Amino acid sequence: MLATVLHGPGDVRYEPVEDPQILKPTDAIIRLAATCVCGSDLWPYRGLQPTSAPTAMGHEYCGVVVEVGGAVKTVRPGQFVVGSFCLSDNSCPHCRFGFPSSCEQREFMSGAQAPYARIPLADGTLVATPELPPDDLIPSLLATSDVLGTGWYAADAANVRPGATVAVVGDGAVGLMGVLAAHRMGADRIIIMSRHKTRQDLALEFGATDIVPERGADGVARVRELTAGVGADAVLECVGTQDSMEQAIRCARPGAMVGYVGVPHGVRLDGQTLFFSQTGLMGGPAPVRRFLPHLIDLVLSRKINPGKVFDLELPIADVAEGYRAMDERRAIKTLLRV
Amino acid sequence: MLATVLHGPGDVRYEPVEDPQILKPTDAIIRLAATCVCGSDLWPYRGLQPTSAPTAMGHEYCGVVVEVGGAVKTVRPGQFVVGSFCLSDNSCPHCRFGFPSSCEQREFMSGAQAPYARIPLADGTLVATPELPPDDLIPSLLATSDVLGTGWYAADAANVRPGATVAVVGDGAVGLMGVLAAHRMGADRIIIMSRHKTRQDLALEFGATDIVPERGADGVARVRELTAGVGADAVLECVGTQDSMEQAIRCARPGAMVGYVGVPHGVRLDGQTLFFSQTGLMGGPAPVRRFLPHLIDLVLSRKINPGKVFDLELPIADVAEGYRAMDERRAIKTLLRV
Repeated sequence: MLATVLHGPGDVRYEPVEDPQILKPTDAIIRLAATCVCGSDLWPYRGLQPTSAPTAMGHEYCGVVVEVGGAVKTVRPGQFVVGSFCLSDNSCPHCRFGFPSSCEQREFMSGAQAPYARIPLADGTLVATPELPPDDLIPSLLATSDVLGTGWYAADAANVRPGATVAVVGDGAVGLMGVLAAHRMGADRIIIMSRHKTRQDLALEFGATDIVPERGADGVARVRELTAGVGADAVLECVGTQDSMEQAIRCARPGAMVGYVGVPHGVRLDGQTLFFSQTGLMGGPAPVRRFLPHLIDLVLSRKINPGKVFDLELPIADVAEGYRAMDERRAIKTLLRV
Repeated sequence: MLATVLHGPGDVRYEPVEDPQILKPTDAIIRLAATCVCGSDLWPYRGLQPTSAPTAMGHEYCGVVVEVGGAVKTVRPGQFVVGSFCLSDNSCPHCRFGFPSSCEQREFMSGAQAPYARIPLADGTLVATPELPPDDLIPSLLATSDVLGTGWYAADAANVRPGATVAVVGDGAVGLMGVLAAHRMGADRIIIMSRHKTRQDLALEFGATDIVPERGADGVARVRELTAGVGADAVLECVGTQDSMEQAIRCARPGAMVGYVGVPHGVRLDGQTLFFSQTGLMGGPAPVRRFLPHLIDLVLSRKINPGKVFDLELPIADVAEGYRAMDERRAIKTLLRV
């Protein structure tokens, strides 16, 4: 088949690769309904994260099971499934504690920007829908696999409660999904820090109530002003830089949690500052599997429409343009039709 | 009156000072039933924290109100009261959010190692008992003011739940109170890291189930061994050094919270390590006022006996010996009779 391979910074190609096969009895093979490009794919694409090229790209996926290994019990060929970018057995102590993203058998998905993909740990990882979903829900179901699940975790880790005032740092796809999650969890007020008109508009559509275009100290001052000097009850950090993390911490009221899901790049935290600001932190790779059944239900019952985060749709053969558009910030997130 | 004054490293004196007076209409003056020396008093005593000597020492207190300012409404002369080391108005947004230790009007108590003390923000800070308590409960009531309240907060911030496996880093008075708190909150298993026989014995009495004398990597390995490789569900960090914080984080299972109450001295945290270990953090000055009514009830109904943490009792005139004994680790915590 043809699939997406990164050969080096800026060099992503749709080219012939081996067809995926069952390698372990716990594997499944799926035919993808759609796939997409993640903000985290841009780190190696930009050469900011070393990779051993050529690398099979893609970790967000949904589609129909075409084959399963001998040990797979909970999904069968013909079923439509969604899985997390973190592969997990859903039975180890970490999974049972609600953190499948730290599963004892954890692997990170790869090779999903392709028509077919191998899903290891299929029983633990995949969630089947009751029936084949209508086509128009495919983008939203795909979103649950990572970008929505990750934004949802940011809100969960930040302990968003009904009536809360929430600040979201980062207007990328994950930040926008964080807005949707906080809204769905009943937040009264959702402040997003964003300077881009299209992202601001989408944030408002997902439930944001206030837009703060200022950054740094000015941005913090604006959030404090909007919260009568108190700070936000919950903060979602969806970037992963030193600046964004500091911004998040300084927007939080004492006792608030910062849910951080942007992979920290060079972030250092001072213990005494955290202590006296009394800011809580919880983050890490999102335990999407924990949320998947609920998120899939919300999509199938049309209570949420996270698929709107895809503002560019391309045939998968044009995947290189999908990366370029996101790299140049012409697109928030690219959906690839297979 | 005579009171405790620190003149410089190692130089603490019981000497004549001005009698405390009502300075603001929100003040109260109390006659102390007892007071004590805090582990945090040792930082300036050891010269590890700069102070502008002479400094009035002491921030843990309970006793009888002798005078109140014109605006004080909730306590009156003759009542027995306990207050937190953090003075707070108990009405600002931070107090209402459960974090009186970050009160908009917060002050830190001082001058309580004395027969009389001025308590600012008396209405917000002081909790009166229904009647004068029996003498034998004075040490336990005094403990609620800081050392128990702080250990309790460590367990609360670490999200200790019934049935949990808890690790406690630090066998000082606060760590021991953390054991008591975790036990009271229903933890099944409480592992304390301690190398000192008297502290180990007291920990067992307060509810510890396992003692880990090893430190560093060996200590972490032992905790992992005791938890079948999983790590603790909740970790209490009660020291405040880089080593103790790292120990705490490495003992935590993915998704666990570390409640940290040791004031961090030179602690730096790496964002990516915290991210991938998926460890949550919540700490800061303990919001003792939030817990005081409950803790006082537990003491008055003799359900807990935190006063056992005082293993040295001296007349306040011998306060210098009280500091020395703690500095030399001959005593866990010194109670001063006034």
